[in-house]
Amino acid sequence: MAIVDITVIPIGTTTPSVSEYVADIQHILKRFQEEGKIKYKLTPMNTIIEGELPTLFEVITAIHETPFHKGIQRVATNIRIDDRRDKTTTMEGKLASVEKHMK
Amino acid sequence: MAIVDITVIPIGTTTPSVSEYVADIQHILKRFQEEGKIKYKLTPMNTIIEGELPTLFEVITAIHETPFHKGIQRVATNIRIDDRRDKTTTMEGKLASVEKHMK
Amino acid sequence: MAIVDITVIPIGTTTPSVSEYVADIQHILKRFQEEGKIKYKLTPMNTIIEGELPTLFEVITAIHETPFHKGIQRVATNIRIDDRRDKTTTMEGKLASVEKHMK
Amino acid sequence: MAIVDITVIPIGTTTPSVSEYVADIQHILKRFQEEGKIKYKLTPMNTIIEGELPTLFEVITAIHETPFHKGIQRVATNIRIDDRRDKTTTMEGKLASVEKHMK
Repeated sequence: MAIVDITVIPIGTTTPSVSEYVADIQHILKRFQEEGKIKYKLTPMNTIIEGELPTLFEVITAIHETPFHKGIQRVATNIRIDDRRDKTTTMEGKLASVEKHMK
Repeated sequence: MAIVDITVIPIGTTTPSVSEYVADIQHILKRFQEEGKIKYKLTPMNTIIEGELPTLFEVITAIHETPFHKGIQRVATNIRIDDRRDKTTTMEGKLASVEKHMK
Repeated sequence: MAIVDITVIPIGTTTPSVSEYVADIQHILKRFQEEGKIKYKLTPMNTIIEGELPTLFEVITAIHETPFHKGIQRVATNIRIDDRRDKTTTMEGKLASVEKHMK
Repeated sequence: MAIVDITVIPIGTTTPSVSEYVADIQHILKRFQEEGKIKYKLTPMNTIIEGELPTLFEVITAIHETPFHKGIQRVATNIRIDDRRDKTTTMEGKLASVEKHMK
């Protein structure tokens, strides 16, 4: 299991707002989550997704593709992968681990 | 006002766990927030910080420095800056804007 | 055709040097390039790869995996994708386009 | 001495091309280099800059600002910092180190 943190920036949007594209992406993520393939969380700066790495690449491909469906001709996607194999990492587990160290 | 999303990775830690270093960083962020300079939020993959750009660079410098205080010799810091000037952006405002588009 | 810019950071290496892992990755990239699937270029900070998006994800998976083969238990991979569809983008074309604007 | 790898994406450009903005940034970098403050290198995906960390933040601030001078209202800047303190790192030294491992 890995966790990714992703931003998808449509280029050539004429306006500075891109929340419409972010909303499209959330619909796709919701579907993947309902199928039990991933867990995800939208933050003010990115979307964080937890799942098996091959599934995550499938999801990344799907969400990277969304702005093109609306006529956008260029997309800049940024992905951070955190892949740890000595123990199971989850979004919750990572936060809990930091909190334990803060006491 | 801008929003940044930052990860600080200490290299050469001997173990895969880095939560101890993330905790140090949270202490610094807490202090800046108590002084009213920034708002911040820890997510499972990064820390998101809202503030004026020069202040944000001051904060980034401070947190990038923390692993060196513990003997780490190399740090890889990754920063995404989202800087919008046609309206005031806040962490809350960005999430609200996506939600409005999802209905 | 898309271009990606990727860094693979092994975590828990005991020393600050990671060039051994970067070298492993270059061997894999060389093989993909010899098969005519991609073009790549190592820079001092990342590896830039040009190819079709599904091939690029295959390559990214392969190189992200390499540090685990050497006993590393955690890898932080960072990927920037630049995907433009109104014209063919190449590494050379992008540099030429900037130079044209600099005159 | 640290090395950074930076991309500056103007949002709301009406066209997918951003090379005009990249060219502006190169002019600024050239000036800083001529003053002996940094060394830099443009790649097809980013600009890599070598210098002291406080100078690098000064440079990053200057280049992040350029698209706003042309009427752009939102800029997404992505920065990777590689800061190593057990030895002097340079762009050339990093490449040489990987090549040594490839033989």
